[in-house]
Amino acid sequence: MNSIISALRTRFGARLSTVSDILARHGAGESYHRGMPPDVVVFAETTEEVSAIVTLCQAHRTPVIAFGAGTSLEGHVSAVNGGVCIDLTGMNRVLRISADDLDCTVEAGVTRLQLDRELRHTGMFFPLDPGADATIGGMAATRASGTNAVRYGTMRDAVLALTIVLADGQIIRTGRRARKSSAGYDLTRLFVGSEGTLGIITEVTLRLHGVPEAIAAASCTFPDVDSAVRTAVAVIQTGVPIARIELLDDAQINAVNRFSKLDLPVLDTLFFEFHGTPQSVAEQTEQVRAIAADFGGGVFRSAASQEDRTVLWQARHDAFYASTALRADSKGWSTDVCVPVGNLAQCIARTKQLLTATTVPATIVGHVGDGNFHVLFAVDTSNARELAEIAGISAALASLAIELDGTCTGEHGIGTGKIGYMVAEHGPAVEVMRLIKNAFDPAGILNPGKILPAPTQERNPH
Amino acid sequence: MNSIISALRTRFGARLSTVSDILARHGAGESYHRGMPPDVVVFAETTEEVSAIVTLCQAHRTPVIAFGAGTSLEGHVSAVNGGVCIDLTGMNRVLRISADDLDCTVEAGVTRLQLDRELRHTGMFFPLDPGADATIGGMAATRASGTNAVRYGTMRDAVLALTIVLADGQIIRTGRRARKSSAGYDLTRLFVGSEGTLGIITEVTLRLHGVPEAIAAASCTFPDVDSAVRTAVAVIQTGVPIARIELLDDAQINAVNRFSKLDLPVLDTLFFEFHGTPQSVAEQTEQVRAIAADFGGGVFRSAASQEDRTVLWQARHDAFYASTALRADSKGWSTDVCVPVGNLAQCIARTKQLLTATTVPATIVGHVGDGNFHVLFAVDTSNARELAEIAGISAALASLAIELDGTCTGEHGIGTGKIGYMVAEHGPAVEVMRLIKNAFDPAGILNPGKILPAPTQERNPH
Repeated sequence: MNSIISALRTRFGARLSTVSDILARHGAGESYHRGMPPDVVVFAETTEEVSAIVTLCQAHRTPVIAFGAGTSLEGHVSAVNGGVCIDLTGMNRVLRISADDLDCTVEAGVTRLQLDRELRHTGMFFPLDPGADATIGGMAATRASGTNAVRYGTMRDAVLALTIVLADGQIIRTGRRARKSSAGYDLTRLFVGSEGTLGIITEVTLRLHGVPEAIAAASCTFPDVDSAVRTAVAVIQTGVPIARIELLDDAQINAVNRFSKLDLPVLDTLFFEFHGTPQSVAEQTEQVRAIAADFGGGVFRSAASQEDRTVLWQARHDAFYASTALRADSKGWSTDVCVPVGNLAQCIARTKQLLTATTVPATIVGHVGDGNFHVLFAVDTSNARELAEIAGISAALASLAIELDGTCTGEHGIGTGKIGYMVAEHGPAVEVMRLIKNAFDPAGILNPGKILPAPTQERNPH
Repeated sequence: MNSIISALRTRFGARLSTVSDILARHGAGESYHRGMPPDVVVFAETTEEVSAIVTLCQAHRTPVIAFGAGTSLEGHVSAVNGGVCIDLTGMNRVLRISADDLDCTVEAGVTRLQLDRELRHTGMFFPLDPGADATIGGMAATRASGTNAVRYGTMRDAVLALTIVLADGQIIRTGRRARKSSAGYDLTRLFVGSEGTLGIITEVTLRLHGVPEAIAAASCTFPDVDSAVRTAVAVIQTGVPIARIELLDDAQINAVNRFSKLDLPVLDTLFFEFHGTPQSVAEQTEQVRAIAADFGGGVFRSAASQEDRTVLWQARHDAFYASTALRADSKGWSTDVCVPVGNLAQCIARTKQLLTATTVPATIVGHVGDGNFHVLFAVDTSNARELAEIAGISAALASLAIELDGTCTGEHGIGTGKIGYMVAEHGPAVEVMRLIKNAFDPAGILNPGKILPAPTQERNPH
């Protein structure tokens, strides 16, 4: 390791650190997972620099881990075997924006709020919005989404092409900017969601959307979670082109009120957003109001002004932080199951039953139009019994989702945290993923210990 | 080969053929490509049967090629090294349809028109519609799309999960039915578009959509192709949620009139379709009418009745057959470039220039909302000079599209026909695709000679 660090120092000088605080910060995300620090952090500024670092790591068979905003929830950046962390936040240039093509190309370290600002006067926007101000590279690496996915899709849909540094340092581009292509294997989609284990994403070409002529938001309270969920599912089944449909249960509303200084009624609530022409937005709002009333919805509050909408959605985006703030010195633990929408009401009802087994503060927030929801636990990471309890509930919930033909993770990724569910969810397809991993990274230097269980775990013990 | 055939005959009996007509039909698609027959065709009826055939082929290192409707345009089913063809048309069961989840699972041999019929009374529809009545498995294998892709996406977006028989006969499922997932590598998207070279698709789970409350169609003539294209691009850039926006140039209108017994004005024309509530459809129609007028559009004819719409879209779907019918005993040759929408007008203008170099009948039809269009040539395949001439124009057009940051194929796939453009389009990423191919099919038995150029072709000769 020392010879690697000294070689890197020669090239990167002050853009390299072995300071323990910096190492610790680069080995951890935002959740309960105990991070493992890398041996060194290098602050890269170009794809060629990333390539040089990876080439060096390959020569030394040393782990190499890409780092963006550090907002991962599943231990993605934990340096489980040490190694070199490449901090990409210095690669924060927006390289091109095309209003004609409705797309842009950014470096991996650009954050979503930075991109929002850059697009502000273009008439276009980038719809994906995980709660955190993640980097676009990190969002691509975890196949992230957010509240708008029900209308605009996930990073799977938003990414047109990637620039990738492969395990041998070679630089490739995975595709071109055409909206669709049948030209060979879909490398773009293969790298989206690969969590830095197949290559390092250094540039991302994104599809953008025109800012709708009109935007309106609304919220509606319900007598119970089930009524709210059934409303959401009916909205989807009716085909209303809704832009956002988010569930916050009563506990989450309480957390949000405290964290964001609001006074929302402490009831199970749906937040909605409508995009379109003024006429279409008005029509969608009425459609949803009628469906909500059918399911026992209470007060239906419109938030037509930009200011009201901003308050509403900021509160929603801060849900994770709000839940964690319910308890002093706690860390957030988020589940992330996603099921077919027709199974969502059942999945949430059974989740509520599971939650009766713990006294740890737990709130529910969900992208219910996609069948995806999170239970946010505020855990005391020093309490082993409590961690085991939440691990048990999380495991039961993941099993339930898989039983309902869903997934253990809709948008957070596997990291280290959900490896244990891979075989239950994918069966022998896990070994097909391993074939890909071994072909792309035979020495296993790229973000080791993520996504794939150790080979023995799913082998028959006989 | 004889021992394979005899082993297969033992199991499949009359569901096996070595009759030369049947072999010939199973080695060819619908286009100008000269097909190569397999040595034997087996008519499989279950995934387990496909697995047994592939296992046998693997043991004998014999090529194995999946066959659906035989409507490929790029030589995908040509048995370039002979081998076993698995005809999947007997796997034509719709396994489940869920109105609650808006999805269904079908066997690979179900055709799109069969699925349309099965969905007719469910309130749902499957939007993808290549011109031919292709099988769903074939559409997944080529990453097909059609006229609705501008609104509903391509097979990349429509497929939720696949059942795959791998090269060693193992059966896997690539994903679950949740709308989104971040659980590991996106095997579904890797197999979509892999053209039978990584595994054989035997079942497909598809996302469905609710039938819109209202549907309306319209057409508008233009003084030239450029005005029509600029109208289409403006519609996309304005964000009208249009369901279809199709260009037929004057030559294509002439072909369609003759083939479908219509009397459309022989002018460059856009066909539109609008989906939504009655109010939204009326509003979209007015938006598009206004944009078309801005670009010099002529008569804007609405086709609100189901019958008028059916005539219009049947004519559009028959475009390939109509063009081929322009010339006795000709075969169709379709180009398939796709470029960023902002580059489309330039690409089509330069294409029109390229077409001045030939007297072969040539029409243009395009999914212009996606930046994708086809030149349909009616070629005399017995005339080598003519084939060379069209090959030259096709190559120039593919190079032009790649230069404009687009692709040589938007929806038809590579097959044997477009292998020559892979390196120009993907550069060193072709070698990454080869890594995948070698990992999945080390013996090279799965549909050999497709997608990837022979290794020597892109190696530096030094």
